[in-house]
Amino acid sequence: MSYEVKSLNEECGVFGVWGHPDAARVTYFGLHSLQHRGQEGAGIVSNESGKLHGHRELGLLSEVFSDETKLQSLAGNAAIGHVRYATAGNGSVDNIQPFLFKFHDSQVALAHNGNLTNAKTLRRNLEKEGAIFHSNSDTEILMHLIRKSQQSTFLDQLKEALNQVKGGFAYVLITENAIIAALDPNGFRPLSIGQMKNGAYVIASETCALDTVGAIFIRDVQPGEVVTINDNGLQVNRYTTQTQPAICAMEYIYFARPDSNIAGVNVHTARKEMGKRLAEEAPIDADMVIGVPNSSLSAASGYAEYSGIPYELGLVKNQYIARTFIQPTQELREQGVRMKLSAVRGVVAGKRVILVDDSIVRGTTSRRIVQLLKEAGAKEVHLRIASPPLKYPCFYGIDIQTRKELIAANHTVEEIRTCVAADSLAFLSEQGLIDSIGLTFDAPYTGLCMAYFNGDYPTPLYDYEEQYQASLKEQTSFF
Amino acid sequence: MSYEVKSLNEECGVFGVWGHPDAARVTYFGLHSLQHRGQEGAGIVSNESGKLHGHRELGLLSEVFSDETKLQSLAGNAAIGHVRYATAGNGSVDNIQPFLFKFHDSQVALAHNGNLTNAKTLRRNLEKEGAIFHSNSDTEILMHLIRKSQQSTFLDQLKEALNQVKGGFAYVLITENAIIAALDPNGFRPLSIGQMKNGAYVIASETCALDTVGAIFIRDVQPGEVVTINDNGLQVNRYTTQTQPAICAMEYIYFARPDSNIAGVNVHTARKEMGKRLAEEAPIDADMVIGVPNSSLSAASGYAEYSGIPYELGLVKNQYIARTFIQPTQELREQGVRMKLSAVRGVVAGKRVILVDDSIVRGTTSRRIVQLLKEAGAKEVHLRIASPPLKYPCFYGIDIQTRKELIAANHTVEEIRTCVAADSLAFLSEQGLIDSIGLTFDAPYTGLCMAYFNGDYPTPLYDYEEQYQASLKEQTSFF
Amino acid sequence: MSYEVKSLNEECGVFGVWGHPDAARVTYFGLHSLQHRGQEGAGIVSNESGKLHGHRELGLLSEVFSDETKLQSLAGNAAIGHVRYATAGNGSVDNIQPFLFKFHDSQVALAHNGNLTNAKTLRRNLEKEGAIFHSNSDTEILMHLIRKSQQSTFLDQLKEALNQVKGGFAYVLITENAIIAALDPNGFRPLSIGQMKNGAYVIASETCALDTVGAIFIRDVQPGEVVTINDNGLQVNRYTTQTQPAICAMEYIYFARPDSNIAGVNVHTARKEMGKRLAEEAPIDADMVIGVPNSSLSAASGYAEYSGIPYELGLVKNQYIARTFIQPTQELREQGVRMKLSAVRGVVAGKRVILVDDSIVRGTTSRRIVQLLKEAGAKEVHLRIASPPLKYPCFYGIDIQTRKELIAANHTVEEIRTCVAADSLAFLSEQGLIDSIGLTFDAPYTGLCMAYFNGDYPTPLYDYEEQYQASLKEQTSFF
Amino acid sequence: MSYEVKSLNEECGVFGVWGHPDAARVTYFGLHSLQHRGQEGAGIVSNESGKLHGHRELGLLSEVFSDETKLQSLAGNAAIGHVRYATAGNGSVDNIQPFLFKFHDSQVALAHNGNLTNAKTLRRNLEKEGAIFHSNSDTEILMHLIRKSQQSTFLDQLKEALNQVKGGFAYVLITENAIIAALDPNGFRPLSIGQMKNGAYVIASETCALDTVGAIFIRDVQPGEVVTINDNGLQVNRYTTQTQPAICAMEYIYFARPDSNIAGVNVHTARKEMGKRLAEEAPIDADMVIGVPNSSLSAASGYAEYSGIPYELGLVKNQYIARTFIQPTQELREQGVRMKLSAVRGVVAGKRVILVDDSIVRGTTSRRIVQLLKEAGAKEVHLRIASPPLKYPCFYGIDIQTRKELIAANHTVEEIRTCVAADSLAFLSEQGLIDSIGLTFDAPYTGLCMAYFNGDYPTPLYDYEEQYQASLKEQTSFF
Repeated sequence: MSYEVKSLNEECGVFGVWGHPDAARVTYFGLHSLQHRGQEGAGIVSNESGKLHGHRELGLLSEVFSDETKLQSLAGNAAIGHVRYATAGNGSVDNIQPFLFKFHDSQVALAHNGNLTNAKTLRRNLEKEGAIFHSNSDTEILMHLIRKSQQSTFLDQLKEALNQVKGGFAYVLITENAIIAALDPNGFRPLSIGQMKNGAYVIASETCALDTVGAIFIRDVQPGEVVTINDNGLQVNRYTTQTQPAICAMEYIYFARPDSNIAGVNVHTARKEMGKRLAEEAPIDADMVIGVPNSSLSAASGYAEYSGIPYELGLVKNQYIARTFIQPTQELREQGVRMKLSAVRGVVAGKRVILVDDSIVRGTTSRRIVQLLKEAGAKEVHLRIASPPLKYPCFYGIDIQTRKELIAANHTVEEIRTCVAADSLAFLSEQGLIDSIGLTFDAPYTGLCMAYFNGDYPTPLYDYEEQYQASLKEQTSFF
Repeated sequence: MSYEVKSLNEECGVFGVWGHPDAARVTYFGLHSLQHRGQEGAGIVSNESGKLHGHRELGLLSEVFSDETKLQSLAGNAAIGHVRYATAGNGSVDNIQPFLFKFHDSQVALAHNGNLTNAKTLRRNLEKEGAIFHSNSDTEILMHLIRKSQQSTFLDQLKEALNQVKGGFAYVLITENAIIAALDPNGFRPLSIGQMKNGAYVIASETCALDTVGAIFIRDVQPGEVVTINDNGLQVNRYTTQTQPAICAMEYIYFARPDSNIAGVNVHTARKEMGKRLAEEAPIDADMVIGVPNSSLSAASGYAEYSGIPYELGLVKNQYIARTFIQPTQELREQGVRMKLSAVRGVVAGKRVILVDDSIVRGTTSRRIVQLLKEAGAKEVHLRIASPPLKYPCFYGIDIQTRKELIAANHTVEEIRTCVAADSLAFLSEQGLIDSIGLTFDAPYTGLCMAYFNGDYPTPLYDYEEQYQASLKEQTSFF
Repeated sequence: MSYEVKSLNEECGVFGVWGHPDAARVTYFGLHSLQHRGQEGAGIVSNESGKLHGHRELGLLSEVFSDETKLQSLAGNAAIGHVRYATAGNGSVDNIQPFLFKFHDSQVALAHNGNLTNAKTLRRNLEKEGAIFHSNSDTEILMHLIRKSQQSTFLDQLKEALNQVKGGFAYVLITENAIIAALDPNGFRPLSIGQMKNGAYVIASETCALDTVGAIFIRDVQPGEVVTINDNGLQVNRYTTQTQPAICAMEYIYFARPDSNIAGVNVHTARKEMGKRLAEEAPIDADMVIGVPNSSLSAASGYAEYSGIPYELGLVKNQYIARTFIQPTQELREQGVRMKLSAVRGVVAGKRVILVDDSIVRGTTSRRIVQLLKEAGAKEVHLRIASPPLKYPCFYGIDIQTRKELIAANHTVEEIRTCVAADSLAFLSEQGLIDSIGLTFDAPYTGLCMAYFNGDYPTPLYDYEEQYQASLKEQTSFF
Repeated sequence: MSYEVKSLNEECGVFGVWGHPDAARVTYFGLHSLQHRGQEGAGIVSNESGKLHGHRELGLLSEVFSDETKLQSLAGNAAIGHVRYATAGNGSVDNIQPFLFKFHDSQVALAHNGNLTNAKTLRRNLEKEGAIFHSNSDTEILMHLIRKSQQSTFLDQLKEALNQVKGGFAYVLITENAIIAALDPNGFRPLSIGQMKNGAYVIASETCALDTVGAIFIRDVQPGEVVTINDNGLQVNRYTTQTQPAICAMEYIYFARPDSNIAGVNVHTARKEMGKRLAEEAPIDADMVIGVPNSSLSAASGYAEYSGIPYELGLVKNQYIARTFIQPTQELREQGVRMKLSAVRGVVAGKRVILVDDSIVRGTTSRRIVQLLKEAGAKEVHLRIASPPLKYPCFYGIDIQTRKELIAANHTVEEIRTCVAADSLAFLSEQGLIDSIGLTFDAPYTGLCMAYFNGDYPTPLYDYEEQYQASLKEQTSFF
């Protein structure tokens, strides 16, 4: 039921709009362009003159809002929304966001993109004081911390709470009179603000959502900031000054949509640069360059352009994959029956192919694609990966939290080449990646979290420290 | 609810397999790769030791077979299947194929891709003799003709019937002991035969379906042929020798999947050639070449390669479009809220763009895309169409049967350019198209039906003649 | 998934209305009150100024028309509808009526209640002449006969066709300008005409549907009649004068709703009379009389009233049975877990109970109910059946066509009593049944088909003759 | 979409089983027989070796568990379940029970039947201390009180919590090692314990659920008791000794199933007694007695038996009502189109009818039924209500909390008679009701809560006091 051949999963997208008569519908279209960030479930909470209305369900956005009635019930001129990533396990609607809280004295809804590193400890402590949680999600914690705070204003309560949660987070809240957004001190996840033609403010995980709703980009939310949007406009506050920008490099490499800009850098352009740099770092003579659709097409075209080798469509992705429950049996699979990706025999047969992919996780997909191309008659397949080897887990919002699942954490490049049965294999260098993106923040991170590649985590790992140390000692063979 | 920005609709895909223990499942995967040829409904009929079982429904294949039970009920080691195109109007399950007929003396099922030009006359004559039809579809007619035939064998009855129907047709039938395929004398629609590793024969509208089920291509069904597949293997017969190959050019330009080969020519390669030729015929100085995803990417990369101008991802298509019922209101649309296609501001802003599209029908979509690019900051947009102007209706299986809907039938190139608001506009020449595809059949058609472009129909129009003549006199303004 | 504890199934209900602006909706409500006559599927065809629109699906009426849109698409001021009975096997939508036929020269839709005895022969002959059938249903045959007819008017074609079909049938047709109803020469199934306050004519299988739509009863359709309703009012014709009224006795005993009148006799009243007569014929001393809900409550109250023994609610039927797919496992069933019927322990414990049921088919249900009562503490259970023993199959529209399934065809009353474990058992006499209903038609049938009880079939059995003769020789043991 | 013509709504049914290998399935069948107590939603939580699994959804039980998979996912040999009543407003799944709580140190699920009178105060106080609620339901409060308790065992924490909640409540909890049930000090709602053949203990809102799952009744839970069921069997504790039995009289009159026994009194028998007493208190000469199906049939048969006037089926309820979304238009309603209830014209025409109903709320339904009978030709309709006039709201678990909606709170009996257009009207006396039920508890309440009739509430009203006092001053006219 997965939508992508890749086994990496982003942990959500958020969206909000303040000041539009059709706020829930605008949020629907905004979330629609963020659907790639989460397919497990979706929800919207609207604000109708201070009264919050919500609807959330498991499924794609178009399933959750399968008819007009559900959207129409979300009246009001402000709204926030959320799309949640698809887990392997069986999800529960209890985890679908935004979470909507109705207190005797106020109403608040909350949506979250990221992962806290001290969630377990915070939750346990809160439960000891009598708190009751209704989901497995980290997201609820912030609300408990806010309600426990003795500060006098909601903004101060929120700031106090934000100083207690650690790790990666991009929060969007809606209260009776404002939308509030906050970003963690490292800014692991993108969060941008725009403005629609009618003056409505929009906030979104990616700028592609601003474009989709016809909004003009204004500014990114910066690490450590709390941004309040209400009828008075936009107010920026800080809950901490101890910040150090470290944007998740995987957003550029794989997660974000190519039409988004992150920290002012266009994702397609960054990917094309990665492809060019890869061509420079790891050239090879061949008849054509092909990319794995859809996420590696930019890098492949960059490789082709730099190398002067023709760019061809050697792999075709079936656009009608979404959520089919019928799968080939093991027997059919062995007979070569495939659903998602096809090699273009008429293009690759008898040719030397440079195959560009964005990354390798377990290696299984790469092996299958190399095999596909060989079966379609490719004479040679040279695999070029437009990012450095993935060697370390992520604790800030990506779904792989152990080294066991990462082939590069366990094997050399030559071993990986053997495993995927390519004729040659090369990865982009770390410096190559950094240069391709070209952020200009200060040291030490210069704006990028590269922990996935080098284990240099910008924050303490708290509840994950033990698990991480254990993970360093594991050794798994992928053969 | 449409799946594509284009308003052209193919009229179906067919698939069949004989000799596989999991025939219905193989058919499912075959149809899955033909889903682009029809999204209104789907069906499969299996043959279990001579007894036929069927299931068909409105919806995408994955909806029609939403659970294993339905597929499992289709036991047997042979099966045929069909996907039907999405019409504007409200469809009825009665029109979904294959049609399954259970007589007191035999069982037959029938699937059809194409359009007959004498259907109305045949139907009226049959009804006068007491025949009762249960669908609006042309497809039923063949069955009535077969049952009326006085020939002694089913094959001879079928041949007699095939000589009565006129126009475009690719039929696949399953009887108690064989699969039979037949193609019209012009071979308007593609139909190919392959073989799986276990020896099972496969027949499909496009070779991409052969690849998907791991079958090796053997041969195309030729115009005028009736091919019988049964436990004795493959037998080829002819119902007529008066044939003249004229493959629908639009299959190469737009309909077929780029990984399919038609008459031995790979579709992606043909499209790339069209792009190259277009660059040769209509060059222009610019900063980048972009294609309309997904069908025009091959042509765009050809244009870029020939011209030496960089190929960029300037338009992004949301991959989660399928069947959403929520649409932007008119007001939101005016505010710039869009669901399907986004221009990549970070790429096109301030640039001179060559926009390659495969064809123009009404011009509405082109106008919208040019506008998108301009709003995203493109300085100039030069539209290049990788096919000649569409000026005449099609009666052989494509959904536009009147000139009124074709902007190029009603306006000059300069008028169209004004209408779509491009800075320049050029079409590929007819000869350019013919050369790019490069078929080597005999004159007069040299293998291609170009009627869409030049009104030269390879068959009499029968029931459509009057409508066509009237259509020539119509003049509609698109301004 | 069955709705009733009884294993007898009626074969459908029909409804039609002419002259009401909201005809499809009126038909919906009419069919709603006929839902007990068929739960497998439902459909409505409306006539909008001569153009017919139809919708039909598997499922209960409320599922088939689960939203307003479907009903609203059936515009026009005339409509007919149909509910179809629930078969054991897996149904196909192809069998759901009304059948809607669109010819080049006319449109007709057709709904049918009953069963033909010469369907197989007619169908085979028609197929030999080239006819193609699209369902397993008898109903299509009439349409083929009409279309084959050389008569000049539709009415004459229909009359000719009606003289060819044999057995039990109540047809309702809608054409471009009329509703036409026809009843077989024996009038096995009821069919009544009424008129709404606005003058619209209504036709229905039972008078309860007239009451539900606020129509006043006008007359029954008589055996051999063809009734035409159009803008000129009601015209009665005959297609045959060789008629002999023989209304299915089971309509009074079990099928029809108690608020319906058949041939002027109220069903509840008839049932109560059967109960009284049963008390007279088979008295017994006991503490209370209870009926099996819902169909036997009238007879039970009659038994109580005549005998002077108190009428109690000793069995409760769960009103939320409809279509649950979760069933007790065999193990749970043995532990006494039951879904549909409960004995009222507080009422029957320690008491001598007279249990009145309307009929016994296989005896399984009776045995289960007797056991239920005993487990709830009943000291004695005296079973009284308010109809004679069922010994012969029905070929006119009831679902049991073999004697094997009838316990009374295979065993004596004493053997049945042993089998169902009752303390005593008695059936109503044939004369008792006849007197209770009290029809006053001429001999030989005096208005009632009693073939179920005595094997005296009012028509030749044609295609069923052989099967029937074989059935007479079978002997099955139910122990 | 309502299931009953009556506008009174019970607030839920609970069920639990401990010690059965198929616990969730047993719970399903138990809940199935309690479906009349709530149709808005349902849920089950199972205990698999100490780990709790849950599933809950809006809809009827058969919809919530529409396939085996959902039930099968609820493994374990203990389970509790809940059915929730249908509110007028739009329900949210957040309110559907059981509520399942997973803490770092334990797991608990909770189901509740009843209504607290101090919920608002408790909730506000808890929120002030930082508690976060996730539903509108009273039920969550108990869990917060338990988690706040400083007692050392779960049982003591629960007891402390039970002493803080006021009003009507029947709780069923499941923990990692026990099922615990508790009843309020007045025992407003029934709660009974039984045992299955395999020794498993069962707890249910009504004894009909014990019968349905084949369990033998053991004892009722008594007011003030906390009953623990675990692998050691049944342990009874008390959380208070200040109890005063006051069973809701409406359970006998209307809510409970006739096959249930409450406090040892069979509900059907009690209703029949009410009918007899009514015949004694308010006799009238007539031709027949009829009851409003289904809840008034017992009382009607009692009236008939005492008076010697024949009991007839004069009203038929369509058994296929459930959840149809198609409703008659206002115009059709005026033309007499009705869905739910039909008068039996053949029975009542020209007759003097005694119509027995169980209660009158707004009078609207009574008026409609009287009109139905008159339209069907009844000469006189004498309405007899088998309970005293409803004059006061209920705060213990029935859905009417204001006097405005009660016609008898605002009008005299003669005024009501005029309003419903009956020829005569009489209610059962309060003493008549008490005698008919025949409980033998001590004064002052002798076991029955009669507050609905006389305003004598067995508990303080706390949060409702103000609203109640205001309500006493309101005067609404129903004309």
